[in-house]
Parts: sequence; structure tokens; C-alpha cells
Amino acid sequence: MKIDGTAYRTIWRDADGVVQVIDQRWLPHELRVAALRSRADFATAIRDMWVRGAPLIGATAAWGMAMQMAEDPSDAALAETWQVLHETRPTAINLRWALDEMRRVLGPLPPAARAAAAARRAAEICDEDVEINRQIGLHGLKIIREIAARKAGRPVNILTHCNAGWLATVDWGTATSPIYHAHDAGIPVHVFVDETRPRNQGAHLTAWEMNRHGIPHDLIVDNAGGHLMQHGEVDLVIVGTDRTTARGDVCNKIGTYLKALAARANGVPFYVALPSPTIDWRVHDGVAEIPIEERNPAEVTHVQGRAPDGTILSVQISPDGTGARNPAFDVTPAELVTGLLTERGLCPATADGMAAMFGDLKAAVSGR
Amino acid sequence: MKIDGTAYRTIWRDADGVVQVIDQRWLPHELRVAALRSRADFATAIRDMWVRGAPLIGATAAWGMAMQMAEDPSDAALAETWQVLHETRPTAINLRWALDEMRRVLGPLPPAARAAAAARRAAEICDEDVEINRQIGLHGLKIIREIAARKAGRPVNILTHCNAGWLATVDWGTATSPIYHAHDAGIPVHVFVDETRPRNQGAHLTAWEMNRHGIPHDLIVDNAGGHLMQHGEVDLVIVGTDRTTARGDVCNKIGTYLKALAARANGVPFYVALPSPTIDWRVHDGVAEIPIEERNPAEVTHVQGRAPDGTILSVQISPDGTGARNPAFDVTPAELVTGLLTERGLCPATADGMAAMFGDLKAAVSGR
Repeated sequence: MKIDGTAYRTIWRDADGVVQVIDQRWLPHELRVAALRSRADFATAIRDMWVRGAPLIGATAAWGMAMQMAEDPSDAALAETWQVLHETRPTAINLRWALDEMRRVLGPLPPAARAAAAARRAAEICDEDVEINRQIGLHGLKIIREIAARKAGRPVNILTHCNAGWLATVDWGTATSPIYHAHDAGIPVHVFVDETRPRNQGAHLTAWEMNRHGIPHDLIVDNAGGHLMQHGEVDLVIVGTDRTTARGDVCNKIGTYLKALAARANGVPFYVALPSPTIDWRVHDGVAEIPIEERNPAEVTHVQGRAPDGTILSVQISPDGTGARNPAFDVTPAELVTGLLTERGLCPATADGMAAMFGDLKAAVSGR
Repeated sequence: MKIDGTAYRTIWRDADGVVQVIDQRWLPHELRVAALRSRADFATAIRDMWVRGAPLIGATAAWGMAMQMAEDPSDAALAETWQVLHETRPTAINLRWALDEMRRVLGPLPPAARAAAAARRAAEICDEDVEINRQIGLHGLKIIREIAARKAGRPVNILTHCNAGWLATVDWGTATSPIYHAHDAGIPVHVFVDETRPRNQGAHLTAWEMNRHGIPHDLIVDNAGGHLMQHGEVDLVIVGTDRTTARGDVCNKIGTYLKALAARANGVPFYVALPSPTIDWRVHDGVAEIPIEERNPAEVTHVQGRAPDGTILSVQISPDGTGARNPAFDVTPAELVTGLLTERGLCPATADGMAAMFGDLKAAVSGR
């Protein structure tokens, strides 16, 4: 999407063939672009979260493999690169998927053919992500357009949680894609951006995206959404998902569930932007079956930001000696979800609805 | 309550007759006690939020009036002190109530009798607050005791939002009073403390209270409560209230409503600690009738804490140019409230229930 008028992706190859990424650690305070040259560079960028978001991690790994193949296309290098990059964030499903996919394509080829094929497949993986997100956006655009038709020129108010934005993908984002499409189509939109404690991805990333693309928005604390919905200030909610079960339970950043409850209580439509590759067909009851990672308590007791002198630092908000619990995700039961915005269209958040729209994908998983 | 083993109130007169308060601006990082001598000292302490919380503000104003009467008990000083102290936080209802009460008692007296009467009434106002909170605690203790009986020695998990703690009152607090009573009675309790963005009163104040009194607790982000309730990790919720309507709608710190929705969805009892003086008998439908103050957006875009070098400072978490909405309170509809913990006992959150328990108070308001 755009940064102050210039179109960007989160990862791209420059004119000299060098892979460039937005180093997201400095956002929202500074835009830094980093060149990734060696395999070690790619590993660092993933491990130290210069890049984050499942699709972007996968894309970065694919390019890391491609760049290594240009240097050393041997079987040994292929195996070792898979290993090195996989270890950077071993629980990231897209990372593993992208590395497996590269190995699947490259393994049967003679080494001399691997560099070109790898670059081709890495570029395709990026383009496939962009296309999925673009389709999600077009389907969401219809919904926003219908609401706009009822609002007589007043902006459509959209609440979002965390960053399911273009910074988490190669471009468009998932939850943000309908927003960008609507804005670019001239529909007046206004976004309420949940700050999304503890890591503040809303404040750091989504607000930055809206700010730079020029979409009207306001940052709010995670506590405020219920009140705004109660007073008719939110027309719809769109969030992303880390993992969606076969019946439509949605595992997403902690706090999503509270917004879904408030949306239901106040008759506000609650949509989940869902690229079909993140459906987990083996899981049904999300609350019972999905283990929720508990992260470092320091994320709760400390907050990172920019000090008055311009330095980026973490301040402690709690007393010494106070501990914290830090569940990273929660599960929103399918019955609270108005619909799933997928690249194939709007899908009901039910086992039947998902099976009808994605029977081919479900069958592929059941069969293996 | 206790600070590392020593019993404190938030305001007291020392052996030399000087009024001392805990200067809460430095919590949770530092415990500072400040002597208030002149009327200007009292005005500063209230205006600059060295003290906060409706009951404590009232108590501080009463003592400010009393100290001034010791210096100059004239009619002019009485009128001027009412004015000077009232202007410090003109929308604080308890502040006005305490000043009116002091004027009611002192006005008819000859100036020579005012200093002693003022000190007596200020001390009574403090003691009355303590007694109300103690009674709330005793009624809440019964509920915690019943839950503890079902838990076979495992701790009773209590979630609270914001700081309705002893730091907001003269002692005990309102929502925290049942917790202190239970802990001091040997019932194992564990408290989930919502950090309570934007001002982080949970992280700064409630966590500090629990920490210093020795009550097991964990800080959580405001997003986490729903997930914890979904997984049976919360046995009950107790929150305070800034204003409760005649039918039991509860206006409290922003985010309370989201926790009430999650409690209802998961069958977790949701109690509100309600000193009867904060009932607003003229208001029924809280969502429709209570105007919600929007505070400075900088509270949302910035977070205060302790930097690694020990200085207390504010860091900016949002991009330059991003605005914020900052509603300070929300309204939890009465139907989500399991019960109101008042100084007279547990009261249903209904118009009939409240009228039955507080008919005398309601009649007094209707009659004026």
C-alpha cells in the first residue's frame, strides 16, 4: 500500500536483485528499509521480528531460500537452509509451509536449474499472497459499500483489532484490505484502531498504515470499543485470524473475543478476514482444542514507545515484584462471527458453510 | 490497609496535628507521603491528583476546610475556602458534598467554635467512609466464602478493573474491601488486576496495593479477561462504580462493560461494590442519560512508566499525526450485574431492589 503517496510492498527485489524489507522494529516512529543479502540476514530478519505476520514470514523465508540457491544450489545447501530458516520461528505454520513448498519445487531439479526456479517460485508465493488479500478486499468492499449506501455520505466506521494489515502480509493485508479498497474507491471510511495491548500492534502498525496511506482513523484503548458500539459509533468490525477451525471458531490476538461479544450485544456485524490457507481443518472446538501460548510477562509489565528525547525504550508500568499473566490469543466462538471474508467470497462461520465453500481443501487435508 | 506490614490510611493527622497524605503520583514506583499545611497545599493535592478517588477527594477537602478554620474561622474564610477547594475539581460530586457538609456544620457556629467542630467533622467524614467500605467488605466476604467452600482449598480467583481500592478511599476501598477481608480471614484469594488503559490505574495502583498488602495477584492486559473467563480461571468479578442509576446501570471506568459481557457469556458472577452515596436517583437509563466525558487524547497516545534509568516518563506509542478518541467511562446495563454490594447488604441491580433497600435515600432525593 502507500506510504506518503508511494506504493510499497513489505518485501521486494530491487533493481540490483537485492531483497529489501521494511524493518518493522522501528515503526511507527521511523521507516527503515533493510537489504537482506546472506542467509544469515534472512534468518535474523525473521527471528528478530524485522518482519512479522504469517504470510510475510513465509514470503521472507521463500526469498531467503531463493537467495541461497543463487550462491550454492547443492542438495546440502537446500537441506541446511530449510533447517536454518525453520529454526528462526519454529511454530510459525506459514514459515514451514513456504520452506516445504520451496523444497518440493527445488528438490527434483538439477542444482544448476535451482536458482532461477527458486526466484520464480518465491516471487509467485508473494504474488499469490497479494492476490488472496486483494480478493478478500473485493468481497469486503461489497459489504462496506452496502453500509455506505445507508449512511448518506457519512463515513462508515470500522473497528479493527491488532494488525491484520499490509505490514503482516506482502500487500493489502487481510482485515485492512476491504478498508483500503473502500477508501481507494472513494467511499468515506473512518477506522477505530484498537491499540492492542500488550504489544500494541494496533498503535504501532495499523495506526501507522492508516496514517501513511491517508485513511481517517483514531487510536482507541482496547477498553473503548464496547462503549463506542453501545452508542452506534461502529458500523462494522473486521479482524484477522491466526487460525480458524473447521466450524468457524476464530483464534486471533487476545481481546478479539471481547469485541465480538460487544458487537453481538449491540447488533454490530463482526467479520473475520480469512485467507483459506489459515483454516485448520483438523480442529473443531476452538476453545477446547486450541492451546493458547502464554508469552513473556514483561510484555504486560512494560510498554515500548518513544521517549521525549526521541529514543525508543521500554518503561515499566507495574510495581517491582508484581507478576503477570500473558495469554497471547483468544478464541471467538463461531456463533459470534457474522461471516468469514475469504478469497472465494463471504462464507458462513459454520462447519457446513465452510465445507461447502472449501470442500476441495478440506478433502485434501482429510485425505492425507 | 497494610504497606509492607504497617497499617495506613490514605489521609491522617500525625502526632503534631499535621495532615499527611500518600502522594499517589509516584506510585507504583515510589511511596511518598506529603504534609498538607496551607489551604494552597490542599488545593494543589486535589487539583494535581496527589490524591484521587471520590471518597478521598471529599475527605481531603474536609480536612482542608478544617485546617483553614484553625487559622482563620471567619465567615469570609469559610466562603473563600469553599470556593478555592471547589474549583480544584469542579465536577467531583464528593468534593462538593464534603464542602457543603462542612459549611452546613460550621456556618451556624460562632467563629471561635469552628476550628474544633471542623476537625471533628472532618475526622467523622473519614471514619464514615471507612465504615461504609468495611461493611461492603463484610457483605462481599460472605460471597467469597461461599465460593471458597466449593474450591476445596484452591484460591478464589477474583478479577477487578481499575482502582476501586483503598487508595481511592480513606481505607479498605470498595471493590477491594471484600478481597482484603477474605485474605485477612485466611481465605486463599488470587486477584487478576486489569491494567486499565489508558491511565493504567490497575497496574499503577491496584497491583501496588495487592503487592504491598501481600495478596497473590497477577497483572493482565485489559484484553485478557474474556479468555480467562472462558477457561474457568475467574470465579467472580468485583468492580467499583463512579455513578449508579436508580435501576442499577453502572457507570464505571472504560472497559468495565466488556468484562461484564464476558462474565455473562461465561456464567461468572459480576458484582459491583456500591457505596450508597454514589447512587444517582435522578437517572434511570445509564446508556441513554449519562454523558461520558472524553479526556485528553494524549492519555491514549502516550504511556507513563519508569525508564531503565529510574526516571518516570511518558513514551509515545502511536505515530505522529494519529489522533485518538478517549471516552473515560462506560455504562454496564443493570441486567449484566449479578448484584450490588452496598454497605447495607447485597442489593439486586433493579429499580425495585434498590428502592426496597434504599427507600429512605430515594425519598430524600425525590423530595428535594
